[in-house]
Amino acid sequence: TVSSDRLRERFEAFNEIGTTERGGVNRPSLSDANRRARDTLVEWFEAAGLGVTVDELGNIFGRRSGRNDDRSPVLVGSHVDSQYNGGRYDGVVGVLGGLEVVETLNDAGIETERPIEVVAWSNEEGVRFQPDMLGSGAFAGKFDADFAYDLTDKAGNRFGDELERIGYRGDAPCEPRDLHCYLELHVEQGPKLADAGHSVGVVEGVYGFVWLDAAFEGTADHAGPTPMHQRHDALVATGDVVEAVRRIAGTGGDDLVGTVGSVDVSPNAINVIPERVDFTVDFRSYDDGTVERAAEKVRKEIAHAADREGVDWECEAVMRIESQSFDDDLVETVAGAADDLDAEYTRLVSGAGHDASYLNRVCPTAMVFVPSVDGVSHTEAEFTEWDDVVTGTNVLLNAVLAEAGG
Amino acid sequence: TVSSDRLRERFEAFNEIGTTERGGVNRPSLSDANRRARDTLVEWFEAAGLGVTVDELGNIFGRRSGRNDDRSPVLVGSHVDSQYNGGRYDGVVGVLGGLEVVETLNDAGIETERPIEVVAWSNEEGVRFQPDMLGSGAFAGKFDADFAYDLTDKAGNRFGDELERIGYRGDAPCEPRDLHCYLELHVEQGPKLADAGHSVGVVEGVYGFVWLDAAFEGTADHAGPTPMHQRHDALVATGDVVEAVRRIAGTGGDDLVGTVGSVDVSPNAINVIPERVDFTVDFRSYDDGTVERAAEKVRKEIAHAADREGVDWECEAVMRIESQSFDDDLVETVAGAADDLDAEYTRLVSGAGHDASYLNRVCPTAMVFVPSVDGVSHTEAEFTEWDDVVTGTNVLLNAVLAEAGG
Ligand SMILES: NC(=O)NCCC(=O)O
Ligand SMILES: NC(=O)NCCC(=O)O
Repeated sequence: TVSSDRLRERFEAFNEIGTTERGGVNRPSLSDANRRARDTLVEWFEAAGLGVTVDELGNIFGRRSGRNDDRSPVLVGSHVDSQYNGGRYDGVVGVLGGLEVVETLNDAGIETERPIEVVAWSNEEGVRFQPDMLGSGAFAGKFDADFAYDLTDKAGNRFGDELERIGYRGDAPCEPRDLHCYLELHVEQGPKLADAGHSVGVVEGVYGFVWLDAAFEGTADHAGPTPMHQRHDALVATGDVVEAVRRIAGTGGDDLVGTVGSVDVSPNAINVIPERVDFTVDFRSYDDGTVERAAEKVRKEIAHAADREGVDWECEAVMRIESQSFDDDLVETVAGAADDLDAEYTRLVSGAGHDASYLNRVCPTAMVFVPSVDGVSHTEAEFTEWDDVVTGTNVLLNAVLAEAGG
Repeated sequence: TVSSDRLRERFEAFNEIGTTERGGVNRPSLSDANRRARDTLVEWFEAAGLGVTVDELGNIFGRRSGRNDDRSPVLVGSHVDSQYNGGRYDGVVGVLGGLEVVETLNDAGIETERPIEVVAWSNEEGVRFQPDMLGSGAFAGKFDADFAYDLTDKAGNRFGDELERIGYRGDAPCEPRDLHCYLELHVEQGPKLADAGHSVGVVEGVYGFVWLDAAFEGTADHAGPTPMHQRHDALVATGDVVEAVRRIAGTGGDDLVGTVGSVDVSPNAINVIPERVDFTVDFRSYDDGTVERAAEKVRKEIAHAADREGVDWECEAVMRIESQSFDDDLVETVAGAADDLDAEYTRLVSGAGHDASYLNRVCPTAMVFVPSVDGVSHTEAEFTEWDDVVTGTNVLLNAVLAEAGG
C-alpha cells in the first residue's frame, strides 16, 4: 500500500504554491504559480527516478521503465492547473497519486512488465484559455499545436507565448502514441459519493458538453431620459438567456445541467444602458442529443431576445466534447481493485470533464473518484477527507499493478 | 450675441483632452484627463479676467464683478467630468457656454449690476464615485466634505486622495451662500427636442431618482456535477432582478424608467456557478411616490429571488434625490429669452440628473436645453448640431442679462 505520510507531505508542500487567503489555490494555466507547480513536479519526478519529457503543448510525462520496455505503457495522471481561486484537490490528487504509485513500487522493489508513465496535462480547467482539456485533447489528435498556440485569454495573451514564457514549450511532438491504458484518479466534484457515504467512485463514463461564447450588442444611452420603449439594452436580453438556461436545464426530467458562468457588461456604469454583454453558456448531459437540443434551444432564445430588444447577437460553440463511456474491462479492473481493498464504491458517471474523456479515444480508459465533502468544487472550500485520498490512491496502485503486470 | 467661432474653437480645443478612438471623451471625475480639462478651464477663466476660487470639493468658480459687487451673484455653469468613454457635449456645453456669456459681455463692455460667476461642479456624472452631482450636492448642504472624501471607486481609490493628487482640493469652504439665481445650459440627452424639431428646451424640472447598490451571494461550485436543484446561483437571482426592473418600469403607464447598468460577477468563469454578483439599479420618475414604490417593489423582488435560489442579498440606496420643479419666474425668464430670439422651444422636464437639482434647493434655478441628435447620450455617439449650441448659449446670455441687470 501507498505511504499516506509521504503523499500528505507532498500534497501540503505542493499547495504552498499559489495559496489564497481563503485556503484555496490560484494557479491558472501558464501563470507564474502554475510554472512553480510544474517545476516542483519535475523535480519530484526526477528524484523518483522518472525520465521526464515535456511535449510541445507543455504536457509533462515521467517514465518508469518496464521489464519489457518495448511494450506499450500504462499511463496515469491528471492536471496541475487550477481554477482562479480554486480548490487544492482538483487535479493535484491524480498527479501526486500517480507519483505515489511509482514511489511505492520503487520502495517495494517491484519491476512491472510494462513501463508506467505519470502525466500532468496542460490547461485542463479551461478557465483561462478555452477549450478545456487542451493538452489531452491535442494528445488525442483533437487539436493541433498551432490551434492551441493561437488561443488567447481575456487580456489577449496567447497560449503559445505564455507557454514559452514559463519555459514549458517542449520539443516532443504532442500526438497519439501506443498506450496500454490510461487511469486517472480525481475528486468527484459532485455530491454522489458523499450522499452514498462511499470512499471510492468507479467511473463508467463522462458527460458530453458544449460551451457557447455569446454576446448581445445594443446601444449605450442615458439611463434617465431614454424612454423604455426606445432602448436597446444588451443586459435585458442577457437576463432572458440566464432565465432560459435555468428553465431548459431544470425542467426536462433529464440529467441536463446548464450554467451561465461569465458575464462582462460594457460600459458597466450605473447610469448607462448596457451597450454590450459578452457571456458564456455551459450545457452537459450523459446524452449527446440532450446537449445538442439544449444548445439549439438556447440559440433560439438568444435570437428571440435579440429580436425583441432590437440588439445584435453572436453565439459560437468554443467547445464540444461528446459523452464518453469508458472501457468495460478497465472499469472492472478498477472495481476489482476496490473490492480487493474492501472499499465500498459507487458506480457513477462524471458531470465534470476530464482528460480521461480525450484519452478514451486513443486507449482503454477508466477513472477512480474520491468524494468531495458537500459535493463542492471549483471553489476554495473544496475538501476531501485524507483517508479517502489514500484509499483512492491504493485503488489506483492496485489497478496499475493489474494492468502493468507485477 | 455670442461668438459662434470663439465658442467653437474652445469646444474643439477642450475636447482634444482625453479623446477616445471612437470620437468621444474619457475624462471621468478626478482622472488625469479631468485634471487637464480643469487646468485648461482655469487658464481660460483667468484669461477672461475672472477671479478663480477652488473649494474643498474641487468645484471651480470664476467671478466677474458687478457694478454693485455686494449684491448676490448670478451663477451659471455645469460640469467637466465625463462618463467612461462618454460624449463631448455632456456638461462641457454649459461650462464653456457660461464662459462665452462672460466674454461676450467683456467684448461689448457691458457691466452688470450683479456679479456673475461661472462654475464647473465636481463629479457630476457619478460614474466613478457615487453619488453623482457630488460637488453641487455638497454646495447645497446635502453632503459634507468628509463624506465626499471617503467615497471610493471600484478600485478602492478615495475621492479625497484623488482630489489631492490632481491638485484640486481647494481651501474655500463648500457650503451654501447667497445667490441671486442659478442657470444651467445642458444637452437634453433624451429625444424630446429632436422629436419636436426645436432648438431649445425650457426646463421646468428634473426627475427624482434612486440608485441602489445590490448584491447576491450564493455558493461557487462546479458547473458540471452540481445538480440543478442543489445550486445557489447568484446570477440566476440577478436575472430575475434585471427582468423585474424592466417589467416594473415598462408597464405602469407612467413615466418611470429603470435600468440595471452595472453587473460584476465573481468568479466570472465559464465552468463555475456564480458565487457573487454585485449590481446596480437606477429608477427615475417626475413623481417621487412612483420612484419610492419602484424601489420597494424591486427590493421585494430581490428578497424573493434570494429566497428561491437560497442566496444572501444586500440592497442599499447610495443615492436618492427628490424630483425638483424649478422656480416659476426664472423659468419664464428663460422662455422670454428664447422668445426674444424667435427660437422655437419645448417646455419639458429632464430625465437626467443635473447640478441644477441641488442648486434648486438654495436659490431660484432653471435650465436651458439644446437637442441631442437621436436623443443619444452617455456614449461616444452623442452629438448636437452646432447651431443649436449657439442658440442655447444666446438664450443663456439673454437670461443672464435679464437677471444680472444690464
Ligand atoms: N474536472 C474539471 O474540473 N474539469 C474542468 C473542465 C470542466 O469540466 O469544466
Ligand atoms: N446629466 C447627466 O448625465 N447627469 C449624470 C447623472 C445622471 O443623471 O445619471
